[in-house]
Amino acid sequence: MTTERREPAYLYSERDAADRSEIARRFIETRKGLNTIVDAADNYLLKRFYNIDHNTYLEGAIPAKYKELMGLVVSAGLRCDDCINYHIIQSFRLGATRQEQEESLNVALVVGGSIVIPHLRRAYALLAELYPQSP
Amino acid sequence: MTTERREPAYLYSERDAADRSEIARRFIETRKGLNTIVDAADNYLLKRFYNIDHNTYLEGAIPAKYKELMGLVVSAGLRCDDCINYHIIQSFRLGATRQEQEESLNVALVVGGSIVIPHLRRAYALLAELYPQSP
Amino acid sequence: MTTERREPAYLYSERDAADRSEIARRFIETRKGLNTIVDAADNYLLKRFYNIDHNTYLEGAIPAKYKELMGLVVSAGLRCDDCINYHIIQSFRLGATRQEQEESLNVALVVGGSIVIPHLRRAYALLAELYPQSP
Amino acid sequence: MTTERREPAYLYSERDAADRSEIARRFIETRKGLNTIVDAADNYLLKRFYNIDHNTYLEGAIPAKYKELMGLVVSAGLRCDDCINYHIIQSFRLGATRQEQEESLNVALVVGGSIVIPHLRRAYALLAELYPQSP
Amino acid sequence: MTTERREPAYLYSERDAADRSEIARRFIETRKGLNTIVDAADNYLLKRFYNIDHNTYLEGAIPAKYKELMGLVVSAGLRCDDCINYHIIQSFRLGATRQEQEESLNVALVVGGSIVIPHLRRAYALLAELYPQSP
Amino acid sequence: MTTERREPAYLYSERDAADRSEIARRFIETRKGLNTIVDAADNYLLKRFYNIDHNTYLEGAIPAKYKELMGLVVSAGLRCDDCINYHIIQSFRLGATRQEQEESLNVALVVGGSIVIPHLRRAYALLAELYPQSP
Repeated sequence: MTTERREPAYLYSERDAADRSEIARRFIETRKGLNTIVDAADNYLLKRFYNIDHNTYLEGAIPAKYKELMGLVVSAGLRCDDCINYHIIQSFRLGATRQEQEESLNVALVVGGSIVIPHLRRAYALLAELYPQSP
Repeated sequence: MTTERREPAYLYSERDAADRSEIARRFIETRKGLNTIVDAADNYLLKRFYNIDHNTYLEGAIPAKYKELMGLVVSAGLRCDDCINYHIIQSFRLGATRQEQEESLNVALVVGGSIVIPHLRRAYALLAELYPQSP
Repeated sequence: MTTERREPAYLYSERDAADRSEIARRFIETRKGLNTIVDAADNYLLKRFYNIDHNTYLEGAIPAKYKELMGLVVSAGLRCDDCINYHIIQSFRLGATRQEQEESLNVALVVGGSIVIPHLRRAYALLAELYPQSP
Repeated sequence: MTTERREPAYLYSERDAADRSEIARRFIETRKGLNTIVDAADNYLLKRFYNIDHNTYLEGAIPAKYKELMGLVVSAGLRCDDCINYHIIQSFRLGATRQEQEESLNVALVVGGSIVIPHLRRAYALLAELYPQSP
Repeated sequence: MTTERREPAYLYSERDAADRSEIARRFIETRKGLNTIVDAADNYLLKRFYNIDHNTYLEGAIPAKYKELMGLVVSAGLRCDDCINYHIIQSFRLGATRQEQEESLNVALVVGGSIVIPHLRRAYALLAELYPQSP
Repeated sequence: MTTERREPAYLYSERDAADRSEIARRFIETRKGLNTIVDAADNYLLKRFYNIDHNTYLEGAIPAKYKELMGLVVSAGLRCDDCINYHIIQSFRLGATRQEQEESLNVALVVGGSIVIPHLRRAYALLAELYPQSP
């Protein structure tokens, strides 16, 4: 039973995120550079994995925004800075408020414990740039 | 900036979950027995941790249902069967559909990889009991 | 650049493993029972993930036997008993000797440390049943 | 610079722990049974690893009791029930009080988060049997 | 049953550590900068978590020095460089000798395996600066 | 039962790898610098661990090349960049083709999930430098 299949409607582009945040800009640029190298390898199974990965976060029974925030929670719980940056930016692009981002990070903190804190600090630095009006 | 504070309105009790599912019943009973032992210890910091844990999943900017599903995603990503059972039951009690539960587990699977699969199998056994009409 | 695509030629069936080892028999049976429940759910992305998973271990530039032993190493390193059982049985079916299985487990032990030992103990119990003539 | 080398003086034997606690008794017995199987394999590197493991917890600059409690903290942080049981019993044998065991578990809880809680519950069940007079 | 509550008596300040070690200085400074950003967010649950975290390492049945070394062991076992730096500095401030720090790292190494080694290398670089007279 | 004991015959030196790849060169240099600091400490148990670690990857029932690729798989599954770099370079030195390296990384990806991807990207950057003729 699966219906996840519609592309979400982004409120902001990656470029919008990069314009607001230097941390986002450098992350997006570095990832793009490395993805070019990965794409050149043209690895069949890797491309299929990327495709499943993409489909997992589409609009479905759960709105895409919450799926990206779920991705943020598990990324923080598993302590992957690049993944945290990615899902914060994706959630931002889908209209998540700063408060929603922080509540998601709180779930990761309580589940994953204080070893999550160094990642949380860096996540808050990105949030501060993406949401400059929020305290 | 935090507003998570209202107790969520459960559609079902733990008892309802236990009545539908033998897996749920045994999990709830075992946990209750062990919690009695933990409570007897009356450990101050442990009780404070439980309190933060409780507050993290309250209604806030993010609805409690999605927070419980987030708890499910990170629990599956970190491969904790008891935590998976707990959050599936909590999500069920807050009205999550089987499809929402499965989409959450898909996020955990793609993020956490095939080592999540043994836990997913057991999670699906619980889902099959809690949602008997769903395929 | 990927060529992994040929099904490996198994020397033994799952049934052969189950006939030799009670641990294998119970593992295979439990997994089959749970897989029936998972299959009934007919989750699209989960099925696609299973498909990539299957393709990853096919004959390729690296012989299937070594890929299964790699699966064993990473499963032991990540401490997943079901995954360890699965890859030990698969490696056995593809003709891996007991010595090859032990050398693989040694890589997992040195990389993953003493927390791997409880899983190693259970792995050795399975090996002792699958390879009764080996010391 | 290393001086860890003296065997610690145990206040209690494994038998004493087993006599006090059914959980301890079953754990010790199961481990002994599996170790017999592992020993039969006579794997050279595994035996060397066991030897380093043994030496790591000897009396040194840090008293053996605190080393065992450290082993408990990291075992709980990495969520390994067998390792938790082992180090609780070892710490008990070296005279650790229940309070010292609980404070160690608190470090694991705050560092490792709520996913540690299911393991903590089982740890408290063992503590309750080993220290029956302590609340 | 919990008595952890007294603030420990530090032999050295963070400033002392920073004066001895360039690695410590940069770590402390970066953390301070990020903490300012986190503090500005004024997240209620995060602040409560920080408070429990602080209380966990106070003097209690276990001396604060050993609790910080426990924090070091579990941080190394969970492979968190920032946490390792933090607990090495805290242990140093509470009078831990270099030998005690190394014995703690040995517990983490044997429990966590060779994947801990890259973190150990960086930890030894910090130790070499904090304890210049020790070989 | 263990026969791992012969030193493998390397096709390339570390210097060859460093000459081909700037990423390899910087990794090897940094590691050498830190190892000098670790060696100066002359920690007995650490040296013994290094010795077991060395012996684990020697020629045995499993060829050294496949053991290094196993080390790569578990390092990627456990998400340790330094370990990934190390085992890619070792596998390269033992004659592993790019395709064998990619198939190994595919095992790690499917077992470990999308959180492995950031490490895979960096691994592919190293592969692109070590194997310039391969696409």
